[in-house]
Amino acid sequence: MDEKEFLRSLLARLGAEENDVVYADGLALKIDGAAAATSKLPFQTWRDFGWRNVAAAYSDVRVKYVEPLYMLVSVTAPRLEEAAEVIEGVREAAERLSLRYVGGDLNQGGDVVVDVAIVGRAGPRIGRVPKPGDVLVTIPAYGYTGLAYRFWGERHPAVERGVAMLKRPEPLWPLPPPECVTASMDSSDGLGDVLWTMAKGVDIVVKRLPAPREVLELAEERGVEVGEVVFNGGEEFLPVFAVRRGCGVGEPYVEFAEAVEGEGRVVWENRELRWRGWSYFRRT
Amino acid sequence: MDEKEFLRSLLARLGAEENDVVYADGLALKIDGAAAATSKLPFQTWRDFGWRNVAAAYSDVRVKYVEPLYMLVSVTAPRLEEAAEVIEGVREAAERLSLRYVGGDLNQGGDVVVDVAIVGRAGPRIGRVPKPGDVLVTIPAYGYTGLAYRFWGERHPAVERGVAMLKRPEPLWPLPPPECVTASMDSSDGLGDVLWTMAKGVDIVVKRLPAPREVLELAEERGVEVGEVVFNGGEEFLPVFAVRRGCGVGEPYVEFAEAVEGEGRVVWENRELRWRGWSYFRRT
Repeated sequence: MDEKEFLRSLLARLGAEENDVVYADGLALKIDGAAAATSKLPFQTWRDFGWRNVAAAYSDVRVKYVEPLYMLVSVTAPRLEEAAEVIEGVREAAERLSLRYVGGDLNQGGDVVVDVAIVGRAGPRIGRVPKPGDVLVTIPAYGYTGLAYRFWGERHPAVERGVAMLKRPEPLWPLPPPECVTASMDSSDGLGDVLWTMAKGVDIVVKRLPAPREVLELAEERGVEVGEVVFNGGEEFLPVFAVRRGCGVGEPYVEFAEAVEGEGRVVWENRELRWRGWSYFRRT
Repeated sequence: MDEKEFLRSLLARLGAEENDVVYADGLALKIDGAAAATSKLPFQTWRDFGWRNVAAAYSDVRVKYVEPLYMLVSVTAPRLEEAAEVIEGVREAAERLSLRYVGGDLNQGGDVVVDVAIVGRAGPRIGRVPKPGDVLVTIPAYGYTGLAYRFWGERHPAVERGVAMLKRPEPLWPLPPPECVTASMDSSDGLGDVLWTMAKGVDIVVKRLPAPREVLELAEERGVEVGEVVFNGGEEFLPVFAVRRGCGVGEPYVEFAEAVEGEGRVVWENRELRWRGWSYFRRT
């Protein structure tokens, strides 16, 4: 069992819906965190790590058209120096993303952990699962982070862009008209994870890779499988929207996949997609 | 600088009020957490630790007369086994305390960290600082936890009661009539911390120790300073209310201190109280 299966079973016991936000009487609630031991990248500063965790929570509420009202942040750290830097990054992200950071908690512990809670006003209620016939659109900027994880010391423009995305993610993408959208998710654990999560009771067929040429070229040049970089990257904080067919969604979005009748498979190049993004506590 | 001074300076920068809950447009918000490395007691199971963190957050909102609506919990743990036990304890506490546990997050990390966010409906807005002339009331059950920290292996009734309080705190105390209350706090970091925090712009004079005879006797018998056990215990999750003089507040509450004109001192036995409860990141 990995953490997603565990959370699924827990949500079922709580009688709660599986979604990226919790809807409750006109509010939408989100708590999202990460620990440095497993999630801080070697090139991230403590400020970056604070920023990243705010952006991750914000990305989840934005992709659901939630209007964020208040943010609370709890920080755990071994030393006050690290905590202070993390909180400074939280503050910077709050400013950049127009979040009202109203308070939090600070505790001493054996790892640096940042938990971000956002309380927002719910918009239209949007789930994770598209309907057969829907088209999947996203912003075609996958692969940068996947390359950055591997080659972050290098001075290649695609790598540098990936590093910048990972240090200071800014999930401020425009939103398609809400009446077009039937389901949505943001990519935090990789596009493969998004697609496999969305493919419940429908199949999703990937038509083209939502990645720019410089990414595809660099991956090929370095002998990294393109699918690995595009589907198994993670931390892109890019949105995937399922939209009704015929609902034209313009730039920066591109159509890259479609939902069809099926039993929950993700298909690419006529085969089941073997990249599933990543998950904690996975035993393989 | 300890974590309280740091949080104070941060709240000042955020323009936020120093209080145990954040008030926002009719809502009251709370996030509260702890890490096992610094806060889990040797006799607590992982379930106890999960329970304790829910009770700690709940205690803060209850003492402010907030009606809790929703709870989100983020759990970090090195292994899924520990996380599952912690979450089970969270569930048990939610049931016991009538909290609606609507969802959360689960992450892998180097320490077990539990962050609990509660969204509630605000009642009357209650701060931390009493007015001169107010009387301080509490439930006279201090000292049990202070003894339990020291003697938890022993089979003494006062120690066993302290251990039970620490394993499964149940902050379900009755609430005084809200129109009587001018300020409130709960004791999580010790009664000394509560009193020093409340004493801002007023002095607080302690008249009697809110501790039962069995506690005072055991402390004396073991040569532990009574003040140390009563003021520096912590994790009692007992409420302290400042009430208008003449507002009779009945059982289980007792009057134990009063607020008088002053400059922020806590006085006991004609001297400044030297116990200040505890704080993380303190350098002495």
